[in-house]
Amino acid sequence: MAAANRAIRLRHRPEGSLRDGDLELVEEPVAEITDGQALVRNLVVSVDPASRFWMGHPRAFMPPVPIDAVMRSIGVGEVVASRRADMRVGDVAVGFTGWQEYCVADDSQLEAPLTVLPAPLPAPPSAFVGVLGHTGISAYLGVDHLDPKPGQTVVVSSAAGAVGSVAGQLAKLRGARVVGIAGGPGKCRHVVDDLGLDACVDHTDPAWRELLDAATPDGVDLDFENVGGDIMDHVLMRLNRNARIFLCGMISQYNAGSDRSGWRGLVNIDQIHMQRATMRGFIVTDHLDRWPEAIEHLAGLTVAGKLRADETVVDGLENVPAALDRLFSGGTTGKLVVHVADRSTATPAG
Amino acid sequence: MAAANRAIRLRHRPEGSLRDGDLELVEEPVAEITDGQALVRNLVVSVDPASRFWMGHPRAFMPPVPIDAVMRSIGVGEVVASRRADMRVGDVAVGFTGWQEYCVADDSQLEAPLTVLPAPLPAPPSAFVGVLGHTGISAYLGVDHLDPKPGQTVVVSSAAGAVGSVAGQLAKLRGARVVGIAGGPGKCRHVVDDLGLDACVDHTDPAWRELLDAATPDGVDLDFENVGGDIMDHVLMRLNRNARIFLCGMISQYNAGSDRSGWRGLVNIDQIHMQRATMRGFIVTDHLDRWPEAIEHLAGLTVAGKLRADETVVDGLENVPAALDRLFSGGTTGKLVVHVADRSTATPAG
Repeated sequence: MAAANRAIRLRHRPEGSLRDGDLELVEEPVAEITDGQALVRNLVVSVDPASRFWMGHPRAFMPPVPIDAVMRSIGVGEVVASRRADMRVGDVAVGFTGWQEYCVADDSQLEAPLTVLPAPLPAPPSAFVGVLGHTGISAYLGVDHLDPKPGQTVVVSSAAGAVGSVAGQLAKLRGARVVGIAGGPGKCRHVVDDLGLDACVDHTDPAWRELLDAATPDGVDLDFENVGGDIMDHVLMRLNRNARIFLCGMISQYNAGSDRSGWRGLVNIDQIHMQRATMRGFIVTDHLDRWPEAIEHLAGLTVAGKLRADETVVDGLENVPAALDRLFSGGTTGKLVVHVADRSTATPAG
Repeated sequence: MAAANRAIRLRHRPEGSLRDGDLELVEEPVAEITDGQALVRNLVVSVDPASRFWMGHPRAFMPPVPIDAVMRSIGVGEVVASRRADMRVGDVAVGFTGWQEYCVADDSQLEAPLTVLPAPLPAPPSAFVGVLGHTGISAYLGVDHLDPKPGQTVVVSSAAGAVGSVAGQLAKLRGARVVGIAGGPGKCRHVVDDLGLDACVDHTDPAWRELLDAATPDGVDLDFENVGGDIMDHVLMRLNRNARIFLCGMISQYNAGSDRSGWRGLVNIDQIHMQRATMRGFIVTDHLDRWPEAIEHLAGLTVAGKLRADETVVDGLENVPAALDRLFSGGTTGKLVVHVADRSTATPAG
């Protein structure tokens, strides 16, 4: 076992984009585990839009990470030592393991208990923070809620992203017309050619509003919303009567000032009134009871070759801050994960 | 029968507040009715926030009134001549009779058929554009949707207005804590003392945000939203988890420019995501099937003395434009109606 843990601690609440010094990579002793604890070595950690607002967003769905604490994140790790009856060395577990190499799995101290995954592991570890994890399950539950039908038009923003790429494919499998919105011609080609969506609008094109209008000639019945800001505001003007919006995220806003002075107000919310629309806010961890159903469904589609699970993999815990910047600048496709360590080769559950 | 009809025609689509010349009061011959038509003399006509956006709001829930047409409005009128089997002279009917003295009731020409009210009329004509009409029914259906329970906090904006005054009382009857928002100390006293709400925040007070915070110490579970803009934006920051918003109107925006350049964007929509809230847009005329149930309920409460139905009555069709200005400047309490004519004394249905 390594004698040192590397961990990313939050030193300052960033204003706008991350600055040097907001996060610090520290090296510190690995804690000795006591009865009721296990030591979990992260294999992959997740980098999400939520990572940014956990650093200090007022009234987010979880409290901000305390200053000097290890940054919260979901990760998948391997049990390397255990004094818990329910975790054996070699087990692989998913949960809030944090941006660090080693996590002490102690249910009385973690924000939520870790979940031990089945052995042998049915998919690579990264899948459990992606298509078979919180992002894929958000897509699954969102599309299930929207329930798109043939003849309807669905818009999916951030269509090449972790949630959007899965949501777009799932909506397409239900027979609806699905229009993605993504940043850049390359991503848009990917969304149409590889993910199979009917169209994709490049929001970096100055004419993106007209392009979105042209791509939704019959208006928008369902919006799987991941972005907020200008893009959402224009989608609102395309809503049909009785449209429904699944509000899964607003990544365009999270780097704005924590006093909200830089936030882009939505002008066209009146269209929710005028079009008798409904909008539902959603946090995937509220629905843990439906995760097994979602994972089974998503795994089945993936194995059957009906669902692509794209990933951008960054290597090394020290590259987490740069990965987060890349997420916000649109430089990733699919689920963004940071690879921290390989599985040990000699584990019984391998 | 009068030889002349007076009617208010839309000449220009206003930018911002109404200007002289946007509407014109004209005197023109009363149309001769033919088979299948009746002539209805308006007793009262309604002046509503919707009146303003019917003049030219893009993507409203009904198309804008054509230039030079008589302005759309709901009214209650008396049949003074009939060549329809289903309308007798003396009947009283409600529907889109327009801002005019005489309306030709011809189902093939009106936007919706008029509805003949029961005889003898169980309430004054104005009640059928107020507490027993579209505004009271909006309040009833909205509170029914929100379904407030004891222990919950409900916010009602425009709490002294036509919809809000009824909604606040109905929510209070269900045992919730109900906090109104209204403009001015007099209105706020009325909301608490006469309508029985638990508190009312005066949004003309510079400290209104702090006052709203103080009046909702346990946050906001349900928002009956009539106003939009800054007020709604601050209510969003008070939402509790799983809060619900019934979006019935956004009067604060309708006098802004029709290109939306003057519209106040909502910054805090992220709270719908973060608090897992839902927001539903509502137009009362979508729910005509529930109007009889609503009217019966509201009439019962009114007769039993459990529901106040306040009105601001303006006399004379020529005063409709001034009444609309007064509505937008907050100079009315309860339902705003314009009295056009008294019932004839010799009608069989009287």
